[in-house]
Amino acid sequence: MLIEGGRIAQTGPDLPSRPGVPEEDCGGAILLPGLVEAHTHLDKSLWGMGWRPHQAGPSLRDKIDTERRLRQEWNIDPHRQSTRQALLSLGHGSTAIRSHVDVDTETGLAGIEGVARTRSELAGLVDIEIVAFPQSGLMTRPGTLELLDAALRGPADVVGGLDPCGMDADPKGQLDAVFALAEKHGKPIDIHLHEPGELGAFSMEMIIERTCALGMQGRVTVSHAFCLGMPDRDRARALVAQLAEAQIHIATVATPFRPVPLAEDLRAAGVTLCAGSDGIRDTWGPYGNADMLERAMLLGQRNNMRADSDVEHALWCCSWGGAKVMGLEDYGLETGCQADLVLVEAETVAHAVVAHPPRKLVLKAGRIVAREGRSLREAP
Amino acid sequence: MLIEGGRIAQTGPDLPSRPGVPEEDCGGAILLPGLVEAHTHLDKSLWGMGWRPHQAGPSLRDKIDTERRLRQEWNIDPHRQSTRQALLSLGHGSTAIRSHVDVDTETGLAGIEGVARTRSELAGLVDIEIVAFPQSGLMTRPGTLELLDAALRGPADVVGGLDPCGMDADPKGQLDAVFALAEKHGKPIDIHLHEPGELGAFSMEMIIERTCALGMQGRVTVSHAFCLGMPDRDRARALVAQLAEAQIHIATVATPFRPVPLAEDLRAAGVTLCAGSDGIRDTWGPYGNADMLERAMLLGQRNNMRADSDVEHALWCCSWGGAKVMGLEDYGLETGCQADLVLVEAETVAHAVVAHPPRKLVLKAGRIVAREGRSLREAP
Ligand SMILES: [Zn+2]
Ligand SMILES: [Zn+2]
Repeated sequence: MLIEGGRIAQTGPDLPSRPGVPEEDCGGAILLPGLVEAHTHLDKSLWGMGWRPHQAGPSLRDKIDTERRLRQEWNIDPHRQSTRQALLSLGHGSTAIRSHVDVDTETGLAGIEGVARTRSELAGLVDIEIVAFPQSGLMTRPGTLELLDAALRGPADVVGGLDPCGMDADPKGQLDAVFALAEKHGKPIDIHLHEPGELGAFSMEMIIERTCALGMQGRVTVSHAFCLGMPDRDRARALVAQLAEAQIHIATVATPFRPVPLAEDLRAAGVTLCAGSDGIRDTWGPYGNADMLERAMLLGQRNNMRADSDVEHALWCCSWGGAKVMGLEDYGLETGCQADLVLVEAETVAHAVVAHPPRKLVLKAGRIVAREGRSLREAP
Repeated sequence: MLIEGGRIAQTGPDLPSRPGVPEEDCGGAILLPGLVEAHTHLDKSLWGMGWRPHQAGPSLRDKIDTERRLRQEWNIDPHRQSTRQALLSLGHGSTAIRSHVDVDTETGLAGIEGVARTRSELAGLVDIEIVAFPQSGLMTRPGTLELLDAALRGPADVVGGLDPCGMDADPKGQLDAVFALAEKHGKPIDIHLHEPGELGAFSMEMIIERTCALGMQGRVTVSHAFCLGMPDRDRARALVAQLAEAQIHIATVATPFRPVPLAEDLRAAGVTLCAGSDGIRDTWGPYGNADMLERAMLLGQRNNMRADSDVEHALWCCSWGGAKVMGLEDYGLETGCQADLVLVEAETVAHAVVAHPPRKLVLKAGRIVAREGRSLREAP
């Protein structure tokens, strides 16, 4: 492969060496496009802060309240922590990240500004998209809407939302507000929807309705969408068909302890599935390592994918799927694509997913940014 | 820690050096007891045979038939493959392994003999327990019972069984035969029970009944036990209470795509839960790496364990739990225990589980057997 101007210029078996163009011997490793971390929270990881025993209780409210408290007590600095996590991601081959970032009446826009600063400092290494995320509620926290509006006038790229019934007990209010912000700023939407079963289906139908009414097809993502894992498979498939029609994307973590959308159903209906790590070692829980090749494995296992072509689809979700959801241009391995590339020592793509060894090499726009699983840029 | 005669002789902050006794600087790493791989299939892994695309169809029957076919075609040699997998395990710190080994009318006792040979060759490195496992059915394959009987007269330690309804369509026949073999040979039982919901509950009640009637309390394990993940939680908990009374153990893989027994329910009732990798990169599926510290993480995630004490319980299942099920003597970190030990670079036990970095050092009976994630004995 020849890379010129940060793009894939030529591929083939017998490309001649060119004077002045540095060469890398890839030793028969597998070449993948840059992985895409399509759902995470860069502002809240505790990575690099030493082990902190988990404190939050089991409910969603416990987790949100504990986090707001510890953000102060532990000085979880969004700029420092997002830099650490983004470089960790890059070491594992993620060259694009969609990050939800908390906006609430206590932290204001500090999270957004911290992650935006990280984004400019890491420009050329990793692309970061910022979702303005009302983690603590939108309708129930007066002032949050104005903060979201300010974030979207500023560095935020995507309008976030969260459990319009479960968090705000006002689905009409929250969703009207979220879609109005999207319309006003001309920006896409990504809504966390943890609500299970029929409650989640109810909220999802309201999202679908607004997406179609406002011509937002292709610009709305529902994250988690646990309701699609409901026991009534026919009802779930009918919802998936509606999602397909509205061109709504689904982002998943392949959560192992809750019902999840089935990759096979989504694929059959033509709904784009992307994936992410969600929170990585934060006050919500201790797990996560930002490795999207391991995430592909977890997604494959969660969906009982065994055939090589199915395992390859799990990888698709963690690369092409995320690229589509983030609207990345010229993404892929074709000539002319941006040279965001990952080299993995493996015999086949399925083998790369299953074994997910440390990445040999990561390139961003043709520039070597990581080797042997570690970003060349040092984390703070 | 001072180790003498393969056992933990003394622990404390200021142990003096002893002339002639080699020392290891553990550099503040976490010391765990040897991990226990309590459910796997050493005879069937494809590890080290190059990547082989997955061939089997989705049903249990497809998998069993495909495996019998490929065992011949691909020459999946039980001795070679069990050696490879056991040394892989050892590199990850597993110092004891319970392996189910296929017995059927085609392969006869070849699998049992191959794994038994591995066991003697690796004596002193890793303890291997052999379950004579009628993978292809017991009642529906005349001749299998006699083979199991021969295996148990020979190297097999445990009587295996498999889905008495689903595989044999003769639960009374299979379970009576399995318990009769156990009684005849004075050996414990470990039954694969994939049967879901009420069907699995039905088989499980027959197992409980026989366990109590024959005084086999504490000597019976049910592997997978997916029925305990049934939606009717009250029914499942009633079964768990019966299991506790019969002192039946549960072995789990923390399967992410099927309902599983909940670790919390089992723990609350006093049922011992152990864990295993199940098949590792075999004709059943491409996943698995024999790392029981990663398995503890997967078990923790599957059960939504977040508090450090819960994550520590996940590790307990992958160490003490397995040791109890296998009946390992003098297991643990107390003075007098056998020095089967694993060193992990981590700040706390929960951190060790979550991060599961390559094991710094593994000791078997006080002897260094692995370093930096790799067994010192080379695999064939
Ligand atoms: Zn999230
Ligand atoms: Zn098994």
